[in-house]
Amino acid sequence: MLRDQLDAPALDWRAKGFWQPGPAVSSADFAAAGHHLFGGAVSWPVLVARSAAITHNIDTMAAFCARHGFSFAPHGKTTMAPALFTAQLAAGAWAVTVATANQLLACRALGVPRVLLANQLLDPVPLRWLAGELDHGFEALFYVDSVAGVEAIGAALADQPGTRPVRVLAELGHPGGRTGCRTVDELVEVAEAVAATARVRLDGVSGYEGGLPDSAAVTAYLGRIREATVRLADRGLLAAEVVVSAGGSAWFDIVADQLGGAWLPGHDLRVVLRSGAYITHDHGYYAEHTPFRRVRNEGSLEQALEIWAQVTSTPEPGLAIVGMGKRDAPYDEGLPVPLRIRRASGAVEGADGLSVTRLNDQHAYLRVPPEVEVRPGDLLCFGISHPCTAFDKWRTIPMVDDGYTIVDVLHTYF
Amino acid sequence: MLRDQLDAPALDWRAKGFWQPGPAVSSADFAAAGHHLFGGAVSWPVLVARSAAITHNIDTMAAFCARHGFSFAPHGKTTMAPALFTAQLAAGAWAVTVATANQLLACRALGVPRVLLANQLLDPVPLRWLAGELDHGFEALFYVDSVAGVEAIGAALADQPGTRPVRVLAELGHPGGRTGCRTVDELVEVAEAVAATARVRLDGVSGYEGGLPDSAAVTAYLGRIREATVRLADRGLLAAEVVVSAGGSAWFDIVADQLGGAWLPGHDLRVVLRSGAYITHDHGYYAEHTPFRRVRNEGSLEQALEIWAQVTSTPEPGLAIVGMGKRDAPYDEGLPVPLRIRRASGAVEGADGLSVTRLNDQHAYLRVPPEVEVRPGDLLCFGISHPCTAFDKWRTIPMVDDGYTIVDVLHTYF
Repeated sequence: MLRDQLDAPALDWRAKGFWQPGPAVSSADFAAAGHHLFGGAVSWPVLVARSAAITHNIDTMAAFCARHGFSFAPHGKTTMAPALFTAQLAAGAWAVTVATANQLLACRALGVPRVLLANQLLDPVPLRWLAGELDHGFEALFYVDSVAGVEAIGAALADQPGTRPVRVLAELGHPGGRTGCRTVDELVEVAEAVAATARVRLDGVSGYEGGLPDSAAVTAYLGRIREATVRLADRGLLAAEVVVSAGGSAWFDIVADQLGGAWLPGHDLRVVLRSGAYITHDHGYYAEHTPFRRVRNEGSLEQALEIWAQVTSTPEPGLAIVGMGKRDAPYDEGLPVPLRIRRASGAVEGADGLSVTRLNDQHAYLRVPPEVEVRPGDLLCFGISHPCTAFDKWRTIPMVDDGYTIVDVLHTYF
Repeated sequence: MLRDQLDAPALDWRAKGFWQPGPAVSSADFAAAGHHLFGGAVSWPVLVARSAAITHNIDTMAAFCARHGFSFAPHGKTTMAPALFTAQLAAGAWAVTVATANQLLACRALGVPRVLLANQLLDPVPLRWLAGELDHGFEALFYVDSVAGVEAIGAALADQPGTRPVRVLAELGHPGGRTGCRTVDELVEVAEAVAATARVRLDGVSGYEGGLPDSAAVTAYLGRIREATVRLADRGLLAAEVVVSAGGSAWFDIVADQLGGAWLPGHDLRVVLRSGAYITHDHGYYAEHTPFRRVRNEGSLEQALEIWAQVTSTPEPGLAIVGMGKRDAPYDEGLPVPLRIRRASGAVEGADGLSVTRLNDQHAYLRVPPEVEVRPGDLLCFGISHPCTAFDKWRTIPMVDDGYTIVDVLHTYF
């Protein structure tokens, strides 16, 4: 059980999505009160997490990893919500993955025992802090992809107290991609630089296939990760225990095909998957790209995030303006998807034919077909595309059961 | 002096941008310590606000409004930072503008005496709360643009205790625009509905010209706002004191031309400008669109926001990867603009020819011309485009003097 929050923020800080004008209420008391989402304790817009769907998704992915013999380090940058990290670790996650030094620090403060920083770490300040934490039971791995970077790490740690080396994975990228060595030869050079640097230890190889265009490219790239790992092992640059990590939320079936099994004889190989968006899934990008659409008999994910927002104006035929904007909903991988209309009477109807055409900072433009009447005061329920840019817009998120009773409050740390 | 924060958050909650791994530090103590931005007290990326530039911009806009006889209700949704509201009110602002019920609640909790909610407010819960607050010295105005909306407000307030009416502005929109009646005839109907509704009082007319394509369209639209106000006054639908409000940060020179002067005889006319983005200005959208590029001898704005982020990888010729992503920098009205390179040695160079081509959640892709060498560990300073979607990505923002000593910490309430 992690610390759920770092400074016990009460809801009296007027976090958006809640309507608590009175004295301070702790989130625990708020959750215990059993508020209904439509009972006046929240304000619009609000991002809501469906508790049962999140539990289902955590269990589904834990089972997938167990079935394929993987370790799982779910990407915590998606949610940065300690209550969800707790649930993921309880379901067997080996570590939590993060993307930045600050997220690493937050995980340490929250009590996460092992963190995979899926990024380079070159800033001397967090590097020196990390070297000190390793003597106090904290485990962390991060990436290296250049000799210059390895030298910078070595220089930052040269005069530090402590005895344990920082543990790194050599990152293999691909041409046109993001970080990571472009060739296996470069990766070997980086690994040799690690071997020559005090206080730095090479634990394995990592990569990220999420930016690749199709399954053929992903398959080829994962093959090169395997080849690179074998090369490093053959050259004696890896210890007995080896970590190989890949896998966002779009291609983990191919990761299972390509990196599963015992392909590194003489070593104790741990393959670590890092999917993040699976935890809430979505109605857009991941609905289309999830491997569960391709693989059979491995389960499926449920959409766990909804934004509820109010129609404020219906100024022209076919147009409704909704109080939900770029501050509230992701818009980088597709606009929010209207799911349902809730009338002032409480009646709920489908939202077939409605679509969001544009977002301003605080408004959405909703196209309404002639056969549907949308009225000022109606509530719209939207699905989202891209969980990462949904969570980071909300500091507190009510968790609801399937009847929309608020059962918990998530705190996020962005 | 407003309350600077609602729950006195200390920096021990690992707010990104700060590096405070030790015991809790209050923001006041942190600011008093005199940290230098490059002295190890922050982590990368960090959004930084330049104190002198903000002061300059607040003074410049206050002088513009005073010179043209306007009241100023700066749009608080841009920053949602109480310390900046305090500075804007101290410089003579008549009110703070907000966009949502939650922002209204935050302003009330912070002690803002008068708020212009530049939006419809149809949710009965905040409406009833507001009706109660009006008896305790709080002033607020909000918009109406439909008869159905006015009826919903009347129904929400019908059985409420309290004596004062809620005060509304009838919103005139334009075809193809956002909220607001599309014709003056519709506006008159809405005003008549207000006159027929207990506990609601019409205080004037509002509009938003920010979405219009050019100065001719803005001029014509502002003329219709004037015409609509005269029509309502002629029909006896306005009291002696009248508020007319318009004005984002892109066209306030034309607002001054079109809405300045004594054009509503027999009434005490207050024209209220609502610009928000002026407070930090930017290196993108507003740098291009600010009226100060058109008007002469009225001053100019300075760019006050910078993001500092670290180069983590230089994996291919011409490409550097920087630790700054969609979570950190606005990307809806243009990508961040490289301004300077700070080497590990502390030397600072220009960033001519560099450009950001893409953002992921936590990474930026930087195109680097052949004649420039960018190295892992270098810091990049970026300007931004669109202050609203910069502020909302940061809970705490260091304010720096021109020598990059941290002199204050802004807290935001999104």
